[in-house]
Amino acid sequence: MGDNVMLSPPPKGPVRPIYAEDLRIGVRYDAGSHAITEAEIVEFAASWDPQFFHTDPDTASESYFGGLIASGIHTLAVFQRLAARSHFNRWNVIAGRRISDLEFRRPVRPGDVLHASFVINQITIDARRRADFTLLGQLENQKGDRVLDFVMDSLIRSRHTAM
Amino acid sequence: MGDNVMLSPPPKGPVRPIYAEDLRIGVRYDAGSHAITEAEIVEFAASWDPQFFHTDPDTASESYFGGLIASGIHTLAVFQRLAARSHFNRWNVIAGRRISDLEFRRPVRPGDVLHASFVINQITIDARRRADFTLLGQLENQKGDRVLDFVMDSLIRSRHTAM
Repeated sequence: MGDNVMLSPPPKGPVRPIYAEDLRIGVRYDAGSHAITEAEIVEFAASWDPQFFHTDPDTASESYFGGLIASGIHTLAVFQRLAARSHFNRWNVIAGRRISDLEFRRPVRPGDVLHASFVINQITIDARRRADFTLLGQLENQKGDRVLDFVMDSLIRSRHTAM
Repeated sequence: MGDNVMLSPPPKGPVRPIYAEDLRIGVRYDAGSHAITEAEIVEFAASWDPQFFHTDPDTASESYFGGLIASGIHTLAVFQRLAARSHFNRWNVIAGRRISDLEFRRPVRPGDVLHASFVINQITIDARRRADFTLLGQLENQKGDRVLDFVMDSLIRSRHTAM
């Protein structure tokens, strides 16, 4: 990193040392774990996905899955929380752009512990000192079962412009 | 609806009158609007996407977009909140399965009013009295600009089994 010529001034705001040039393709980034509680499932869904099998532990027992399950959007938010705290908030991320091929593979239930990780498989620097990068994100539960996976494209600053 | 033979017993839990057979292909379902506040952007992101351009109005002014913007996952959650309250919680939804082709088209800022709607373009009943349905969801802001669109596959109960 220290050998790179800094062509663009660093953005103001918090210090974020990681630019597109620092990202590593094909390496699995570990983003840590998050324990899902019944209270968190209900609280998230009461605001953002108010369907009874996410919000009401009593009647959820009569649902297809036989009990309370987390909103899929809650599980995606858990991934983002873990990845932002462990990695993205030290990266010069500009914004997320796209999500594709997202699959809610298995129900997430109270007591599950979700472990997040991702692999970057593409980085493309543009002419505006930005780079589009693609990551393959996943959450696994405490049994090692995949519960979520998806592909996300985001923009990050680069130190250099494309040739 | 009244003419359909009820082949499967209604699920327990809250009364949800809408089954796969009641969904309409090609019709735009209106899901209402939601006003985004600075406080809500910060609160959501503090829990689920803690990057400074979502959580800190002061330093966000130095970011790429020149001010606080909502987490993309927050905007997806706004869609789901609106759609669940207006439609899905009267439907016999089993669970979401997949999201594809999701695009965060424009930044969402404090004061924006987001309007949600969706169109169903595919319903396939299976042999287990379930149906996979695909919806094209979108959020537009108060200027009529699209800020989010995506494709979601979900499962819903059907009254009948596939032939």
